[in-house]
Amino acid sequence: MDHSKLIAPPGKKIKLADSDPAYTGDFKKKKNAEEKLEEDIQQLQELQEKFYAQDEYALLIVLQAPDAAGKDGTIEHVMSGVNPQGCQVFSFKKPSDEELDHDFLWRCMTRLPERGRIGIFNRSYYEEVLIARVHPAILEAQKLPADCKGPDVWQNRFEDINNFEKYLVRNGIIVLKFFLNLSKEEQKERFLARLDTPEKNWKFSTADIKERAYWDDYQAAFEDCFNHTSTDWAPWHIIPADHKWFSRTAIADIIVNKLKSLNLAYPTVDDEQKARLEEAREALVKE
Amino acid sequence: MDHSKLIAPPGKKIKLADSDPAYTGDFKKKKNAEEKLEEDIQQLQELQEKFYAQDEYALLIVLQAPDAAGKDGTIEHVMSGVNPQGCQVFSFKKPSDEELDHDFLWRCMTRLPERGRIGIFNRSYYEEVLIARVHPAILEAQKLPADCKGPDVWQNRFEDINNFEKYLVRNGIIVLKFFLNLSKEEQKERFLARLDTPEKNWKFSTADIKERAYWDDYQAAFEDCFNHTSTDWAPWHIIPADHKWFSRTAIADIIVNKLKSLNLAYPTVDDEQKARLEEAREALVKE
Repeated sequence: MDHSKLIAPPGKKIKLADSDPAYTGDFKKKKNAEEKLEEDIQQLQELQEKFYAQDEYALLIVLQAPDAAGKDGTIEHVMSGVNPQGCQVFSFKKPSDEELDHDFLWRCMTRLPERGRIGIFNRSYYEEVLIARVHPAILEAQKLPADCKGPDVWQNRFEDINNFEKYLVRNGIIVLKFFLNLSKEEQKERFLARLDTPEKNWKFSTADIKERAYWDDYQAAFEDCFNHTSTDWAPWHIIPADHKWFSRTAIADIIVNKLKSLNLAYPTVDDEQKARLEEAREALVKE
Repeated sequence: MDHSKLIAPPGKKIKLADSDPAYTGDFKKKKNAEEKLEEDIQQLQELQEKFYAQDEYALLIVLQAPDAAGKDGTIEHVMSGVNPQGCQVFSFKKPSDEELDHDFLWRCMTRLPERGRIGIFNRSYYEEVLIARVHPAILEAQKLPADCKGPDVWQNRFEDINNFEKYLVRNGIIVLKFFLNLSKEEQKERFLARLDTPEKNWKFSTADIKERAYWDDYQAAFEDCFNHTSTDWAPWHIIPADHKWFSRTAIADIIVNKLKSLNLAYPTVDDEQKARLEEAREALVKE
């Protein structure tokens, strides 16, 4: 699967309008994508075992998207096969009082994955340059000193995020960032489905409709965010999301490819250790 | 009190040998310094109350020093007057297994002070460019992937630390860094005192003597650290520490001056809030 069309190229001007949310790559049919997804899920399970055993790298997966773009479903369908001992999901919603008392990266920093693990951020520190930008009252409500809320606050946050991610990568934490690119029309369809299907009602919040009214502002905030934070060390992936079967397959394949590139291996046992294992075996047998 | 001689000037070559550990500034006698310390402690208490009430800035104090330089005593004597609700001390020793499973800043990030509070790091993330540098086996034991342990690891760590501190300052967390500059001779005297005085025996560890053998390596690591991480936003203070009465007074005065510069004020109550307070009073009186 060719991923080059799904990457927001660092250093180049990115226009969201140029990305087609209905794009499905080389997949002609849903069925083909689903078969590919099955294969990738299988590989992911095997790779994760080695990843966990090697205990050197960690993988941070960041998901950002408009409402109903499929973040929850992606996590469920792509990651359900992996051992939950090696995979932690954190959803970042409205910050708590304690979280607001800290710097904006703090609540995410404290939940970073340990070595050998996959950490998934369902929304993330990027909210601080997305929802906080669309709704200036959110920044205003943060208890920042006045001199920290100047006109360069967004530029500073982009820079701080880039530096933070560079630090993570330098310390063995791989950062994979996915934006689920949903069309406004498809969001409408999915909202209607949530309203019309009793089992889906719980997923609908009237707040979603309010946020939908800010669609263009969000698109602008997303676009500016990608233009400032798609870096060589942690590029953004813009994943067409009007077809769930495509977005899930694409994300699974990108994760699998990344893990494969690490040349993961089970820790080897040297001669001295082997001798000790042999001693242990003998002691057990004699018992 | 003039602090200019105590700052490691950002961007200029710093030589530790140029700083006299026995320097006592304008204080002719111990008694004068102690009187000044008393005044500063008094001011610190008042300032901290406003700092806590205003709830906007946080203050991070980083203490690094050779053994027996007086970190613990400084915390005790300078900070004992402040309300512990607004002041937290964290001592960073040998990392735990959980901490080693994370990136090197993680254990410090999670303990960052909340707004309105003073956080004191008794040793800190700087250990990662000090003890880890003097003893290469420490870096080797960290479960970093091989490509994260290259020759540029120290330069990268300096850069990551600088970026991290810039981020903190941008988000209202003031960073004050103090190095207690002890002479090798005075360390010997203090170690002997610990050995010869039964009540001080508990403070002595045979490991201290082992580390003393690396004195020159530590001095070189400290010097290189200050040359790379004394920045405009978070400069290092090099505090002469052969006289405890001087180092404590100097540190207290620098903290007080920093807090004064923030123009702290109790939150004000606007007319609407005043009206509500009046209603509350009436309700209570009528009860």
